[in-house]
Amino acid sequence: MTRTPREGQSARTTVSLAALRRRVRVALGQEPGDCLLRGGQVVNVFTGHVQPADVVISDGWIAGVGMYEWTAHEMIDLQGRAVIPGLIDSHMHLESTLLTPAELARLIVPHGTTATISDSHEVGKVLGVPGIELLIEASESLPFDPFFVSSSCVPAASWEHAGAVLGPAEVRSLLAHPRVLGLAEMMDVPAILRGDAGALEKVRAALECGHAADGHAPAMSGRDLMAYISTGIRSDHESGAVEEARAKAEWGMLVQVREGSIARNLDALMPLLVARELGDDWTLVTDDILPVDLRERGHLDALLRRVVAAGVPPAVAVRHASLTPARHYGLTDRGAVAPGYRADLVVMDDLRDFRSHLVVKNGQVVAREGRFVADLATRPIPCVNTIHLAPLDESAFRLRLSSASCPVIRIQPGVLVTRSEKRHVSRVELQWSWEAAQDVLLIASIERHKAMGCVGLGLVAGFGLQRPGALGSSVAHDSHNLIITGTNPTDMLACARALAECGGGFVVVSEGEVRARLPLPLAGLLSLESTETVCRQLGEVEKAARALGCTVPCPFGVLSFLALSVIPELRIADQGLWDVVAQQFVSL
Amino acid sequence: MTRTPREGQSARTTVSLAALRRRVRVALGQEPGDCLLRGGQVVNVFTGHVQPADVVISDGWIAGVGMYEWTAHEMIDLQGRAVIPGLIDSHMHLESTLLTPAELARLIVPHGTTATISDSHEVGKVLGVPGIELLIEASESLPFDPFFVSSSCVPAASWEHAGAVLGPAEVRSLLAHPRVLGLAEMMDVPAILRGDAGALEKVRAALECGHAADGHAPAMSGRDLMAYISTGIRSDHESGAVEEARAKAEWGMLVQVREGSIARNLDALMPLLVARELGDDWTLVTDDILPVDLRERGHLDALLRRVVAAGVPPAVAVRHASLTPARHYGLTDRGAVAPGYRADLVVMDDLRDFRSHLVVKNGQVVAREGRFVADLATRPIPCVNTIHLAPLDESAFRLRLSSASCPVIRIQPGVLVTRSEKRHVSRVELQWSWEAAQDVLLIASIERHKAMGCVGLGLVAGFGLQRPGALGSSVAHDSHNLIITGTNPTDMLACARALAECGGGFVVVSEGEVRARLPLPLAGLLSLESTETVCRQLGEVEKAARALGCTVPCPFGVLSFLALSVIPELRIADQGLWDVVAQQFVSL
Repeated sequence: MTRTPREGQSARTTVSLAALRRRVRVALGQEPGDCLLRGGQVVNVFTGHVQPADVVISDGWIAGVGMYEWTAHEMIDLQGRAVIPGLIDSHMHLESTLLTPAELARLIVPHGTTATISDSHEVGKVLGVPGIELLIEASESLPFDPFFVSSSCVPAASWEHAGAVLGPAEVRSLLAHPRVLGLAEMMDVPAILRGDAGALEKVRAALECGHAADGHAPAMSGRDLMAYISTGIRSDHESGAVEEARAKAEWGMLVQVREGSIARNLDALMPLLVARELGDDWTLVTDDILPVDLRERGHLDALLRRVVAAGVPPAVAVRHASLTPARHYGLTDRGAVAPGYRADLVVMDDLRDFRSHLVVKNGQVVAREGRFVADLATRPIPCVNTIHLAPLDESAFRLRLSSASCPVIRIQPGVLVTRSEKRHVSRVELQWSWEAAQDVLLIASIERHKAMGCVGLGLVAGFGLQRPGALGSSVAHDSHNLIITGTNPTDMLACARALAECGGGFVVVSEGEVRARLPLPLAGLLSLESTETVCRQLGEVEKAARALGCTVPCPFGVLSFLALSVIPELRIADQGLWDVVAQQFVSL
Repeated sequence: MTRTPREGQSARTTVSLAALRRRVRVALGQEPGDCLLRGGQVVNVFTGHVQPADVVISDGWIAGVGMYEWTAHEMIDLQGRAVIPGLIDSHMHLESTLLTPAELARLIVPHGTTATISDSHEVGKVLGVPGIELLIEASESLPFDPFFVSSSCVPAASWEHAGAVLGPAEVRSLLAHPRVLGLAEMMDVPAILRGDAGALEKVRAALECGHAADGHAPAMSGRDLMAYISTGIRSDHESGAVEEARAKAEWGMLVQVREGSIARNLDALMPLLVARELGDDWTLVTDDILPVDLRERGHLDALLRRVVAAGVPPAVAVRHASLTPARHYGLTDRGAVAPGYRADLVVMDDLRDFRSHLVVKNGQVVAREGRFVADLATRPIPCVNTIHLAPLDESAFRLRLSSASCPVIRIQPGVLVTRSEKRHVSRVELQWSWEAAQDVLLIASIERHKAMGCVGLGLVAGFGLQRPGALGSSVAHDSHNLIITGTNPTDMLACARALAECGGGFVVVSEGEVRARLPLPLAGLLSLESTETVCRQLGEVEKAARALGCTVPCPFGVLSFLALSVIPELRIADQGLWDVVAQQFVSL
């Protein structure tokens, strides 16, 4: 991959002497700028004021903001609209959008997002460093700045087979990239607390570079939280309650208030934001968000709308989605509509609805009235089938139960935490047998990276299926083995075969037939299609799931987290049912 | 010079795996820490609260803060005293203290200063990069962290002869040092505003490294200020009035509220701090401070006392002297008493008087009850005489005046700005002649770097001398030529010779005899003696000046700024009298 950053895509400021000199002349009114945004109301994130001011842009940077006489080659009359800095989502996983970075640009740039900080650990778990480098390369020269953090937990757990291992050396090699801003969420809290050398070396690597180290500390508090923070980890996006967020902010953690497709904490934390209790150290992130939510609800603009509606002053809310994350991650070139800052800005119709009128990236208009208007020079992304299965037959999906009373994974609406529930289920000849009324399905995790033949089986409650069938996915946090839930071995086997055939994706099978599919050929995680196609296909698989009786709103999202063995209480891995609390396999 | 940073003296966090692992165990109470500070009231700079908490330290870092069961090899009972982070002076010139870095440590560490950011441009102007490297080397392994910024304006002005030139290449070479945090105050505002390549290249060099670029924008406002800020310069310590500071903070500049020995802006800016109008972006600095003021008044502790007395909540005031400058300069390892931060902290008797009970640097007690208790492994500093004069005689100090009415430099109490005043003065055979009642003295700037023979002459009003004599100094901002003021050529010549003899310093001569001297053999700027000796000698030269009738409180300080040709209105250079406003020499 190329190691020379494109102008605007490095955390460091690279600008030519000629451009810097011209910027001074433009500011002084000695020569015309490239673009003059006239008659706007500029949100000043330093003072918290909103003030009438023109903005003059020179070579992609803001030369001046105020009421001076400026000229420019292009004049845009803002008619009193609000001008805010480009928005920064400082914690997301590109892979959750199912889209290539270029397609993501089309989707989020019109909502005012001009930078993201992604942990591409999903691709990392399948393809390792080359996979992450592939994504970094695929996100060059886009009309937003996709930054990355070096994935800390690949594989996420030793009790699952993944496609790759990122040790401290791999983490260091990624940290050297100019668009890699730090260490990604350190999810392996137990490793940190027991002083595991590998986990601590990764934190050290980031701190030695002067970079941020991101945390992941769900429900942590007290002395454990303190020990975790003591290593230098300084952010967290897992707070689900006011007390939890307050405890993290108390010791200087950046509270990344998360509102994704599945995990949603904004309402719970809103009282803290309204009461201004977190000081300067909070921001808004999406973590894992589906393309359909981005398309229908929006991105950070939608969160700003809610935060402002709840009572946070607009300029404060905007600061926390721009300057605050920029400063935390050392992006000193952005985060404010002010002289000497990169001309990444959004013209909003107002500061209540946050409907974007114009989005400007490096001084260029890249979206207008919510439509993407930038040129996209997309390159073909090299893509190989990563679904490698050992020979499978229906017997792999027959679950023998030693007792009719057994532990079942109970999915919970709107949160990632599952419950471990003791249930009485039906058996036929000691094998589990589906009964619609019980709302219990078989769930399987099938190793798919090296055709090792591991298949873990368990039971899950809450999907609501009423007709025979199966749902399958190659997106299964964190190791992205195949995860398939269903009522019978025939449909589940057909599901596995369909997934292998399309290089991964989401598939719904019923009565042996594929009813709908969303192919994700890039690492079994990303589509190469447009947002429209992906959303349509996603609608089709969800509709097919509903046709089976499924009552869960985002069934493939929920399914993909049922293997997430770092969050309590019970999960499925390719080696069996995993009790997260007890940190051991459960026999059935 | 060595390029390997001592642990604790780099802007980056360097800590061993073993130490990091132990820190976690100490936090968890699984093994004893090195030191436990018990029963204190910890100032939390994140929340603004002051809360009862113990602090446990492990290998120089804070492992835990709170009310947990911890043990340690050393226990210190704080009896309810306040614990604050080590204080950071983010803009000072070491040379103004006249002391070596080791002597400065003895002086400021007991006041709670654990880091300084120095622009050593004075030594730079005499000795160039090797001189600055000499100071960086002389400040290794001290019980505080002396960081530096790469001097941007050496020489400060093209109309003066200096000893060295630091071009963009030299600035870049210094920026590569691990203890150099950015570009020092860009004083050459006109060069920036006219797009001078050399000045802009230096700003670029800092921004390309991801470093801060410091400003120096006295009395700037409006479009000029905006153009200056547009280059990426983001701090300023020259605000003397509320409106000026507000205008700078408006566009995100860090307002470094300066309170030095001569230039004092704290009272003027206090209303802004009390009204919390500057948001997060202000801090306290001393810029140029004499050792006697540090000894008698204190350092940042003295400023905190005043800020709190004026009504700023103590935790807010403390944050702005610790976390705020740390974050601005990328020192992510310090600035808070919190887990994962360097154990640089100060135990204060209370948060009103800020009298330090203990100072802890990297976990070691380095001062106790205001007394320095650390070991100082000082190395001899290599030192050559830098005073090189061309042959001089009394005729050099005879000023021919074309008119008896002529411009005179009028010194102003308490500010660096001078006035250009038209005065009627005495002449004898067309030469200026002293009359005590007029309070006008001859002032000379004598090139001393390369024995070029340049002597600039002018007149200065306000010293109040009543008896014949002369005061001379080799400290003369910014080029550090000899600056001598006096009543007659004989005493001024004797003064120049005495300065050459001792390698520079401060000298008072009367009736041809040296009455007192403070030798500054290191570059003509720094003493190699102890604070006590330097303060005694300073007292002696000031007393000798008073004996001549001098009424100015800090005569050598004032004298040293009379050549400072970047601040209005009228100054003396080795090539003549310089009108700063008109940017031209004035003929007499």
